[in-house]
Amino acid sequence: MSYAIGLADVHAAARRIAGWAQVTPVMTCSTLDRRAGKSLFFKCEQWQKVGAFKFRGACNAVRNLTPEAAARGVVTHSSGNHAQALALAARMRGIPAHIVMPRSAAQVKRRAVEDYGARIVLCEPTLAARETTTASVQAETGATLIPPYNDPDVMAGQGTIALELREQAPLVEAIVAPVGGGGLVSGLAIAARALNPRIRIFAAEPLNADDAARSKTAGTLIPQTNPKTIADGLLTSLGDLTWPVIRDLVERVITVTEEQIIEAMRLMWERAKLLIEPSAAVPMAAVLDPEFRALTDIHHVAVVLSGGNVDLENLPW
Amino acid sequence: MSYAIGLADVHAAARRIAGWAQVTPVMTCSTLDRRAGKSLFFKCEQWQKVGAFKFRGACNAVRNLTPEAAARGVVTHSSGNHAQALALAARMRGIPAHIVMPRSAAQVKRRAVEDYGARIVLCEPTLAARETTTASVQAETGATLIPPYNDPDVMAGQGTIALELREQAPLVEAIVAPVGGGGLVSGLAIAARALNPRIRIFAAEPLNADDAARSKTAGTLIPQTNPKTIADGLLTSLGDLTWPVIRDLVERVITVTEEQIIEAMRLMWERAKLLIEPSAAVPMAAVLDPEFRALTDIHHVAVVLSGGNVDLENLPW
Repeated sequence: MSYAIGLADVHAAARRIAGWAQVTPVMTCSTLDRRAGKSLFFKCEQWQKVGAFKFRGACNAVRNLTPEAAARGVVTHSSGNHAQALALAARMRGIPAHIVMPRSAAQVKRRAVEDYGARIVLCEPTLAARETTTASVQAETGATLIPPYNDPDVMAGQGTIALELREQAPLVEAIVAPVGGGGLVSGLAIAARALNPRIRIFAAEPLNADDAARSKTAGTLIPQTNPKTIADGLLTSLGDLTWPVIRDLVERVITVTEEQIIEAMRLMWERAKLLIEPSAAVPMAAVLDPEFRALTDIHHVAVVLSGGNVDLENLPW
Repeated sequence: MSYAIGLADVHAAARRIAGWAQVTPVMTCSTLDRRAGKSLFFKCEQWQKVGAFKFRGACNAVRNLTPEAAARGVVTHSSGNHAQALALAARMRGIPAHIVMPRSAAQVKRRAVEDYGARIVLCEPTLAARETTTASVQAETGATLIPPYNDPDVMAGQGTIALELREQAPLVEAIVAPVGGGGLVSGLAIAARALNPRIRIFAAEPLNADDAARSKTAGTLIPQTNPKTIADGLLTSLGDLTWPVIRDLVERVITVTEEQIIEAMRLMWERAKLLIEPSAAVPMAAVLDPEFRALTDIHHVAVVLSGGNVDLENLPW
């Protein structure tokens, strides 16, 4: 089976982003090990640049542009972590970034992107408006579109997490990562399984945005409709490049309720003192779920904490 | 000048607590470096056992008891981090711990201590009641009193932070630590200055509990009266063992307002994604204060983040 990327692409991404992205630490917490009944290795992407793993993929994509393409800049539509990631990656290369955002986006998210020096282009909050606005920015400027997940460079960038885990937590038998569009879990599944064919990859997903779980069950890509979850990084549907990897290399998609997500997030804050966003609590909720606990042949687990960008004024408890 | 402890005591403490206490990591954050105008090295005691540096001193004191004394148990009066620290240190040695607490102590603090297996003895919320209750527990049980800070073993235990910083951040020209009773800053000042006589030690204190600053100015120990600060780990007065060290080895006590503490805490959470309690934000507030910023010959600073036990239901913003 051939996928959008292979291990060599992930190695190339790691060389490309070295010195720009952080090699994030792995943390442990004996209290949470007891709760989970397993040894957990938390891969701490809340300390990645811009506070989320998204910087890896955006940085790889930006640094892989030819000088000519780079000079014309980059564009994307996002109001989340990918927007900040692309803005910073572009600033680091000294090129323009145009970020298309719905008018309804929170002021704090606009400010964060502007602080990284990007130009914000507002549009109506519909998919059609986002796409036509993005296309018109591309036509005007010649900027390259950097999608948030369904892109080989972005997937390869996210996959660099697996290379670091191989060094930092070499004994894990499983990796659990959140799934939204699937860029993270597909990139790391490609790399982790190429390095160690026996490693087991699990995706964790909110029950209220369970397109990956339903797609796995059906054996075919089913887009997400009307997602509604506190894990606002996981609202999107899988893409045609990420889905085949998830179909073939992810052992299981574990779904968790909103209550489980909030409880896991609080546990991470209170006991591990790790400040993570709701989307990053989803894999921890999955690890604590009876479905995962029942896998008693798994003793050492890497849990990818995907980010730490949380609104401190609106905590969910 | 002779103090309650010397470097050899701190080295002995480090050997005694090895394998029981955590060697906590040092973290950095380029965004906060820019804010401070200096390179900051955060010593992360929020990841110490029980979530605070207090475990070092309590563990050292408990492990330094003779087998006969240990068998009779330990006692203290505290409703804060020292209570949890002593409870866990005692449990690790398999001996009883009696914790005297005012009836007014929050239920969550009682629960935390009980979860570590200690016996709680409630008393009226006055100093006299605490002391007579503690004395009667001692008389009944023969337990050894382990004070929260004014004690050589406790000071030596806290001082082990300086030994770790020497390895983890060898180039720092200064260390900034919070001061309440002074166990932390006196222990680390003894060790850090013995290892490097040119290192500069700063204490950070809430303006609303500024007994250390006033004592330094007066040149004599002035007890705290009516402290009122969000930094609830820093309410206590200096002790007769900690004060001489602070008088001689601490270059300056920097006081900060409640607003500065809250702003520094929020900055640490939002930008560094480090979950710390208000008392631990005090040294960060000091580093951002114009008084410290004016010290332009200091370029690399260790900031001791003393703990991360915070009530997530009552955040100060």
